[in-house]
Amino acid sequence: MPTSGKTGLPAADPDLGRLRDFVRAFVAGLDEPIEARARLLRDLVARDDWLPAEYAEPDPARYRQYLLHCDSAERFSVVSFVWGPGQRTPIHDHRVWGLVGVLRGAEIVQPYRRGPDGSLLPASAAQRLEAGEVDIFGPDIGDIHSVANAHADRVSVSIHVYGANIGAVERATYDEAGREKRFVSGYANRSLPNLWDRS
Amino acid sequence: MPTSGKTGLPAADPDLGRLRDFVRAFVAGLDEPIEARARLLRDLVARDDWLPAEYAEPDPARYRQYLLHCDSAERFSVVSFVWGPGQRTPIHDHRVWGLVGVLRGAEIVQPYRRGPDGSLLPASAAQRLEAGEVDIFGPDIGDIHSVANAHADRVSVSIHVYGANIGAVERATYDEAGREKRFVSGYANRSLPNLWDRS
Ligand SMILES: [Fe+3]
Ligand SMILES: [Fe+3]
Ligand SMILES: [Mg+2]
Repeated sequence: MPTSGKTGLPAADPDLGRLRDFVRAFVAGLDEPIEARARLLRDLVARDDWLPAEYAEPDPARYRQYLLHCDSAERFSVVSFVWGPGQRTPIHDHRVWGLVGVLRGAEIVQPYRRGPDGSLLPASAAQRLEAGEVDIFGPDIGDIHSVANAHADRVSVSIHVYGANIGAVERATYDEAGREKRFVSGYANRSLPNLWDRS
Repeated sequence: MPTSGKTGLPAADPDLGRLRDFVRAFVAGLDEPIEARARLLRDLVARDDWLPAEYAEPDPARYRQYLLHCDSAERFSVVSFVWGPGQRTPIHDHRVWGLVGVLRGAEIVQPYRRGPDGSLLPASAAQRLEAGEVDIFGPDIGDIHSVANAHADRVSVSIHVYGANIGAVERATYDEAGREKRFVSGYANRSLPNLWDRS
């Protein structure tokens, strides 16, 4: 993979055709089982040579979420999550199905479930996702988790697909007692990549 | 309308909610008659306070086409056409339905039809479209035209909607003898406006 020496990010002007082909295949398979959609994402993150550097820029203070594509009817959105060294999310939910595919580096995902008193308990051991691996979540199979960069000394990047315009969904973060705090995440970017120029 | 003194373009950070609401309404009405879709575009161009200045920048040499939104399945695209003073297109076709709504300034549209010998003849008198007005065309009702800025001394801008990812459609320009020259227009912009941040 061609990289710039300073950041390890792909060189400028990568091929957006990979992301365009993913969006086309994903919308065609939107009614397929979630496992079929997860396979499409696995194909996308199998190679780390297509994400423009401007959508992989970390923020020194906290993780960033860049919108890459949103469906016209907001039926799904595709996002790049960029984790600076050691950055992590609070415990949070999504309220729609979601797929996470690691493009670069690695992530630690900790799923939660509600205990009898309403508090949040680990639903299983934390899972480490390496580059190329995909995780599935949703309201039906468990929708509350926290996610962290597995690396303390480097950037990780993952590609997420959600069953809505995720940056506009009113959802919640939680403390360990299970108390909700409502949030709408928005996006870090004012501009999206133009996937659609085939000329 | 707040304008910058130099260009007459809207001030920075206009409300992209108008364009987002248009895309949402348009995709919901994609199977409605073309006249219903034209009414949605008429509503959009009724006010010139929402197009970011970076998608209204003219090129000194020729008209420019900026992609604003493309449907995930490439069923439709929304484009801003920016005409420098006196600029015009060659005679060309589209091969899909199209809507043109003038946002700023005015345009002259000249439709063509094939004569018995295959040459192109004016199908009617040229039509002047003022800001706020919408034109409809398509393979079924006539798809060949040339378009020009009606103004020799100022920029005009129109918003177009097409039944495909128009920048990727292989179509044709024509000389007056009706001889085709294939072209794929592409787009002037590498980045699209992020319509989807509601936070
Ligand atoms: Fe999450
Ligand atoms: Fe045209
Ligand atoms: Mg769509």
